[in-house]
Amino acid sequence: MQIDFATAGRIIFGAGKMNELAQIANGMGEKAFLVRSKSQPAAQKVPDLLKSVGIGCVDHIVQGEPSTPSIRAAVEKARSEKCDFVIGMGGGSVIDTGKAVAAMLSNNGDLMDYLEVVGLGHKLEQPSKPYIAIPTTAGTGSEVTRNAVIAVPEKSVKVSMRSPYMLPEVALVDPELTYSVPQTVTASTGMDAFVQVIEPYVCNAANPMVDMFCRDAIPQAAQYLPAVYQDGANQKARDAMAWVSLMGGLSLANAKLGAAHGFAGPIGGMFPAAHGAICAAVIAGVMQVNIRALQEREPQSPSLQRYAEIARWITGDDQAAPEDGAEWMSSLCRQLQIPSLGRLGIQPSDFELIVEKSQHSSSMKGNPLVLTKTELIRILELSL
Amino acid sequence: MQIDFATAGRIIFGAGKMNELAQIANGMGEKAFLVRSKSQPAAQKVPDLLKSVGIGCVDHIVQGEPSTPSIRAAVEKARSEKCDFVIGMGGGSVIDTGKAVAAMLSNNGDLMDYLEVVGLGHKLEQPSKPYIAIPTTAGTGSEVTRNAVIAVPEKSVKVSMRSPYMLPEVALVDPELTYSVPQTVTASTGMDAFVQVIEPYVCNAANPMVDMFCRDAIPQAAQYLPAVYQDGANQKARDAMAWVSLMGGLSLANAKLGAAHGFAGPIGGMFPAAHGAICAAVIAGVMQVNIRALQEREPQSPSLQRYAEIARWITGDDQAAPEDGAEWMSSLCRQLQIPSLGRLGIQPSDFELIVEKSQHSSSMKGNPLVLTKTELIRILELSL
Repeated sequence: MQIDFATAGRIIFGAGKMNELAQIANGMGEKAFLVRSKSQPAAQKVPDLLKSVGIGCVDHIVQGEPSTPSIRAAVEKARSEKCDFVIGMGGGSVIDTGKAVAAMLSNNGDLMDYLEVVGLGHKLEQPSKPYIAIPTTAGTGSEVTRNAVIAVPEKSVKVSMRSPYMLPEVALVDPELTYSVPQTVTASTGMDAFVQVIEPYVCNAANPMVDMFCRDAIPQAAQYLPAVYQDGANQKARDAMAWVSLMGGLSLANAKLGAAHGFAGPIGGMFPAAHGAICAAVIAGVMQVNIRALQEREPQSPSLQRYAEIARWITGDDQAAPEDGAEWMSSLCRQLQIPSLGRLGIQPSDFELIVEKSQHSSSMKGNPLVLTKTELIRILELSL
Repeated sequence: MQIDFATAGRIIFGAGKMNELAQIANGMGEKAFLVRSKSQPAAQKVPDLLKSVGIGCVDHIVQGEPSTPSIRAAVEKARSEKCDFVIGMGGGSVIDTGKAVAAMLSNNGDLMDYLEVVGLGHKLEQPSKPYIAIPTTAGTGSEVTRNAVIAVPEKSVKVSMRSPYMLPEVALVDPELTYSVPQTVTASTGMDAFVQVIEPYVCNAANPMVDMFCRDAIPQAAQYLPAVYQDGANQKARDAMAWVSLMGGLSLANAKLGAAHGFAGPIGGMFPAAHGAICAAVIAGVMQVNIRALQEREPQSPSLQRYAEIARWITGDDQAAPEDGAEWMSSLCRQLQIPSLGRLGIQPSDFELIVEKSQHSSSMKGNPLVLTKTELIRILELSL
């Protein structure tokens, strides 16, 4: 048993907790840099909340997924405004932008110095400026992870900036902020969260700390994701999915992922599809192919037993076989009207390149076993 | 649901992880202040480990439980040696000493400025110096809590120094360090850990984060504490109890405790008995009296259902009633030869004063319901 666990300095969770923002931020500095999306109405009260404790606020709106140009612009603004700390309020894109800005506020040089793969991959020398991450979707769990996924347009890839210093100082998870998320976003972000508690549980780096989070969250996701999709006003279901999202972040940050995320990175770099939508489109196929491969090549693998556990939890049937879990997940995706890979614009002629790019991604390395090229293509076929 | 969770910056768990100390400490500074107990042989290799990465080490041996004089002496030495960070290796007493030293290395003034109740209770202004906490018992879980319990001899009390800044930078939990713990210490520290996953689970501030830790740890404690008591060489049982201890620290730091700890503080200040021994002596009585009181006055309390869950987990009987859990715990204490309060030197004539001092302790405030004076005395009688 080997565990190396780290998370946000403080995790605050609860409906209405957003109202404590001023008290939470108090002491972090005189001027905040607020990163948010345009469509986030609750963010508009942030400057007033901060004003009540004498903290100034520079408002910065970001659009789309984080990219090197968008982050550079944000960093330049935050540096020139001499902001002391960062607040990020939005979906995973906004939370990740905030992480990168908080890191670049206390570290010199250009963003590319620190990016993996296409950049220099330097370590951050200094701890980030304090960062309060406030997710408004449920979600990526990015409020408790130590990386930001950043698109590099000139290379057509998404890569990570990664450091223990990028763990937010505070993860402020207020489920109320998700109550107004529209149905399609509820579905894709909810599936992202769901996949993020499944893959770490069956991955080849599973550990008892992360197991607790996954065991708690998987049955809740199975119960409440269909519920919240049917009725976005179901607050109990909203709260539960915010919890699942947080557990997903804790899990992926402290174990590994698997083939679904292994595909999602490269596909996200090649096609204009949301991360959650891609994970959702492939997860049933990943489960089916993984289970088959484990049965054939590693029938004693604990991951296979875990697929059986998952199947029993999500189907509610004590006699469920691993495959029943994959089938249930496929049916959930239909129910949630998750677009297939085909609907996301991917064609069979793209498979070869997708597999080539995905095969050695860091997430793929967490998959319960190494899949052959044929098996990887099979997943894409099943997800088309 | 309200959660405000914080823990050590990094939690490393695993047999043999102690060997990675140099790598873990690398970057924390040029000179370490090592706090340890005399009887800790594994600590003797710390200076050599550190030397391999060019880090110097000032060795400091502490005896007995932390007190204002012992901590002042340690702080003076660490300050005059200009140590950059602290390593604490030992039981709860040593870990707590290290916390206080790490805090006082970066904060000015005297210890009394920061002590609760009998001191000025000032907030720490600066984050502690980096602190690596390495427990050698299983145990207090103090490696992931934010307070140090310190005796103030001139006042005959134990009080806390408490701050979010006192959470260690690294909790390094290597179960191998507990393999040689003698049987009586295994029993009392193991009971301490066990009580620390029971009280937070039934307390009035239970929350889903802590629930996960308790649900995971309670059945393991019930299985492995008797096993490790019978056979100290049972490594699987040792590893499990190290895990339970860590879960106990995470739980008590992020929820509350109850009457057992409510008694343990004041009794520990009045009598020369180890914290774990006192918790062990009273826990069965606390469970019995709490269950009776809940049945009489708050039969709908979720804490009562949780006592029933605990009873089912620890007895292994799906039909167990809450009282069966208390009875099982009483039988475990006999099996582990836990000394009664009488054996610890306490007499019925002491009860009045103990209850008076315990009634308003911070741990008592977490008890599932407010107990009457008669009920508190009843617990002491049952534990005599």
